[in-house]
Amino acid sequence: MSKTRVVVYGLGPIGAKMVNFLHERGTFEIAGGVDIASDKVGKDLGEIGGLGKKTGVVVESNGRALLERIKPDAVVLTTTSILERIKPQVEEILESGAAVVSTCEELTFPWKTNPGIARDIDALAKRKNVAVLATGVNPGFLMDLLPLVATGVCKKVEDITVYRIQDATSRRIPFQKKVGVGIDVKEFNDRVEKKTLRHVGLTESMHMIASRMGWDLERTQDIIEPVIADENFSLQGRTIEKGYVLGVQQTGKGFAAGRQVLTLVFKAAAGINESYDRIVVNGLPPIDMTIKNGVNGDIATCAMVMNAIPAVLRAKPGLRTMADIEPVACFS
Amino acid sequence: MSKTRVVVYGLGPIGAKMVNFLHERGTFEIAGGVDIASDKVGKDLGEIGGLGKKTGVVVESNGRALLERIKPDAVVLTTTSILERIKPQVEEILESGAAVVSTCEELTFPWKTNPGIARDIDALAKRKNVAVLATGVNPGFLMDLLPLVATGVCKKVEDITVYRIQDATSRRIPFQKKVGVGIDVKEFNDRVEKKTLRHVGLTESMHMIASRMGWDLERTQDIIEPVIADENFSLQGRTIEKGYVLGVQQTGKGFAAGRQVLTLVFKAAAGINESYDRIVVNGLPPIDMTIKNGVNGDIATCAMVMNAIPAVLRAKPGLRTMADIEPVACFS
Repeated sequence: MSKTRVVVYGLGPIGAKMVNFLHERGTFEIAGGVDIASDKVGKDLGEIGGLGKKTGVVVESNGRALLERIKPDAVVLTTTSILERIKPQVEEILESGAAVVSTCEELTFPWKTNPGIARDIDALAKRKNVAVLATGVNPGFLMDLLPLVATGVCKKVEDITVYRIQDATSRRIPFQKKVGVGIDVKEFNDRVEKKTLRHVGLTESMHMIASRMGWDLERTQDIIEPVIADENFSLQGRTIEKGYVLGVQQTGKGFAAGRQVLTLVFKAAAGINESYDRIVVNGLPPIDMTIKNGVNGDIATCAMVMNAIPAVLRAKPGLRTMADIEPVACFS
Repeated sequence: MSKTRVVVYGLGPIGAKMVNFLHERGTFEIAGGVDIASDKVGKDLGEIGGLGKKTGVVVESNGRALLERIKPDAVVLTTTSILERIKPQVEEILESGAAVVSTCEELTFPWKTNPGIARDIDALAKRKNVAVLATGVNPGFLMDLLPLVATGVCKKVEDITVYRIQDATSRRIPFQKKVGVGIDVKEFNDRVEKKTLRHVGLTESMHMIASRMGWDLERTQDIIEPVIADENFSLQGRTIEKGYVLGVQQTGKGFAAGRQVLTLVFKAAAGINESYDRIVVNGLPPIDMTIKNGVNGDIATCAMVMNAIPAVLRAKPGLRTMADIEPVACFS
């Protein structure tokens, strides 16, 4: 079987990890890499992906030219979380005839949040006879696909609650910084205001679930709140004083026919003492499913994108979502 | 939206429950019912399904004539667990141009256990431009689809273990009888010999998982053992003496490249004290997912078959499996 030829477009931390994962899997040929950052252009992908050897493939800045020359089967697109910004890149890739698998959170289910862009991408993908999918661990799995799959055995579903609870106590410093550990409430609110402290995708996950459940969401909420220390908290040799921030809780709520049918709770903070992912389907039968210790997000997002490539190559042309392609599984 | 026109073919306990579920969902028109049992022919489906009212649709014995007259969109086929026996019925339904959704365990993934029949059904379904799917809670969900979906976030998978553990202590008498509670070991072995005491589908589930993981299973085992009381056990006013049977443990093992990569454990016995379903993916990241109290099998199988109907109507023509159609979710 010939290898699937892939280009990695966007070589930040996630794109670099994708290079590593795709190389290790052994069923892919990494045919090119694209990034506009001057410290990356010209570098060998082996160095970018930490492969411990050169690949002979170097990062290029002109995506269009590279794609026209290489004509890959699929492009892994990891440049941004924002739909408006990724649209021209998706179009550039589709014009070359390649399928797109992206980590862009807002592209996971843009049909309700930005139907115009969704329709444009869908139409172009159909014209070029390829599929586009955005996925990852969340959105793409924990708070949308997995709850949907769980409801498959239900006669009725009243409402769904999903928890992703991550104890930041023993996590890396960058993770702690990202979720606001140790800052004061004013800075927390500033960061929320500037959108530098938030998880992107709760709204997309809710719309993805609703689309399959037949729920017409009349209203969604996405609420970001600080988790505040109610006493001094000792963390890795420093003290987070009472009243300061231990982390973040972000809650998505979806309402249909006047009822709250969806509750997605993402909490990442020091001092929780327990990490887990949990899906509660209030239905017949009821489903209460817990993943012990939770799913490691760093590995999971890249693994999901990689594992999705064959499914996307087999999918119906157009803008696809995790809710309408075949189940993505690990393969070797 | 016009209702999906469905015929229920086979009106035993599962088929009768399907009539009930399809009626309650409200998006289906139950256009006909087929069974050859003389105590069912001529009865109103409302009586069969316990709907508390007549539907005006009565059970008929001639499937072919009914299908040719009614031309349903889909047929729910619940006549047998055995592939050889269901094949002519599947063909009869396909000839009428309807899609098939069946509870037949051996039809969930017959590509390895009986590739000849799988190919025949696949070819006919493609010729008639409709899809065929068999599903349920197990096989169809717990021990195949759900573990596959869980691996979607894994970079690597070494092996997978699935447990379906059901405490029979407080279950209905028919369930206790089915799993051998209270009989002696000789009778247990006789029933296993006669194939009246067994769960059908472990082998199919293993082949379904392997097909997507890229595992070439060189060998599978399906082992049925009694769970034996090691002391006198008091159950609902009677005593099961030491040495007698408390229930059954059935274990599926799948081997690839000399390693045991799949272990499916189905245990149903009195005195377990805890029911649960659990999936353990030994991979990167590791996944340890537990459904508290387990999934109620009676409801779940019928719900899954019903929920799968729209997905089957949208699926690629041919013999499909849960591993290659869009995720099945509850809908209203």
